[in-house]
Amino acid sequence: MRPITAIGFDADDTLWQNEQYYRLTERHFQKLLGDFGDGADISARLLEAEKRNLGYYGFGIKGFTLSMIETAIEVTDGNVPSRTIGEILDIGRELLRHPVEALPHVEETLRSLNGHYLLVLITKGDLFDQERKLAQSGLGDFFDAVEIVSDKTATTYRRIFQKLADGPERAMMVGNSLKSDIVPAIAAGSWGVYVPHALTWVLEHVDAPTEAPRFRKIENLGELQRVLTEVMAV
Amino acid sequence: MRPITAIGFDADDTLWQNEQYYRLTERHFQKLLGDFGDGADISARLLEAEKRNLGYYGFGIKGFTLSMIETAIEVTDGNVPSRTIGEILDIGRELLRHPVEALPHVEETLRSLNGHYLLVLITKGDLFDQERKLAQSGLGDFFDAVEIVSDKTATTYRRIFQKLADGPERAMMVGNSLKSDIVPAIAAGSWGVYVPHALTWVLEHVDAPTEAPRFRKIENLGELQRVLTEVMAV
Repeated sequence: MRPITAIGFDADDTLWQNEQYYRLTERHFQKLLGDFGDGADISARLLEAEKRNLGYYGFGIKGFTLSMIETAIEVTDGNVPSRTIGEILDIGRELLRHPVEALPHVEETLRSLNGHYLLVLITKGDLFDQERKLAQSGLGDFFDAVEIVSDKTATTYRRIFQKLADGPERAMMVGNSLKSDIVPAIAAGSWGVYVPHALTWVLEHVDAPTEAPRFRKIENLGELQRVLTEVMAV
Repeated sequence: MRPITAIGFDADDTLWQNEQYYRLTERHFQKLLGDFGDGADISARLLEAEKRNLGYYGFGIKGFTLSMIETAIEVTDGNVPSRTIGEILDIGRELLRHPVEALPHVEETLRSLNGHYLLVLITKGDLFDQERKLAQSGLGDFFDAVEIVSDKTATTYRRIFQKLADGPERAMMVGNSLKSDIVPAIAAGSWGVYVPHALTWVLEHVDAPTEAPRFRKIENLGELQRVLTEVMAV
């Protein structure tokens, strides 16, 4: 029996750049409000708004835009010009059409695994936006299934790998977020392969489960085949 | 061979009230801008913004809120007070927590069909919001699968009924939107059962395909069993 038959991949900052576009938008947002406070303070207020709104908006750019608008009202004590609100709407829409470019080694890795493992894209965020990015990435054909979910917990991984594959124990999850991709996948009984990205949203930070026997860390997706060879030989 | 083995159900205004909460929010929005135009004009401008933004935001409350903010800036020629923008954010969040109440005959119908057909909830809108409503409705256990999609086309129905059931020809779709639920399902080769709702969003209006042999119309979900009995006897 093959120890692993399915591999799940996170999308944002695992397959393509994402966070860097959020950071650029946030810097633009800081500048728009430059008269009302320094950048670090504005970003801190924005993060507070995002946390507060997570239970309403979930993850994604539309909720981020709404939180920017709320923050603009707050930091200006209600004196934000409506022109600035209009500009926030504009930078939110720009973020919704940022270019999608596969990270190094992604395409060749997916191509070589395709047909040998069941490949599942597992991502959270706005449904509509994630579908756009997958279409533009040109990577869609490598995946046997796409799961866009509202949150990533152990239950999420258990459900997906049970439904589509041979259960979580024979599955591996690959991603750049310890909190969303690795820790819950390992809790579900799967392997978790951590591919760090230089930029990761602060709300995704947790400690690496370095003691877990099914935890691995690689530098880029080009090293995934090596991990698979090792694990498959166990 | 049973002619039908799977039934898809739309959610908003088919299983529970939805549009009425949008209408209430829109009336509230009209009042907030009462100094800058009459209600009908404000709603017309809002609809224009929604259409224009559909390609960016898709369907759902977060995009609706962003379009309300944009419209507020527009109809006031950039003079909307930021207090009003804050109130628009508030009514958008209120809409995101509107109560979820099953429409008449929904629960008993789903209960009686459960186990006899593969039941699939097929809905569009914000992923996070649709999951909340399904959880609050208490109807989740009646469904074998839930598909939250960004748009509903013939391809959508073909893909879903192929993947989960015995193909579109042996499936039936039930919903209140001719444009999203009925016409594309029939185009995919499925049966389409139209359950009109008094309130349906203007962008969902198209003519009923009354000539199509697989089109049926019922007054409420309590009549679905009768249609099934008729179709199953063919």
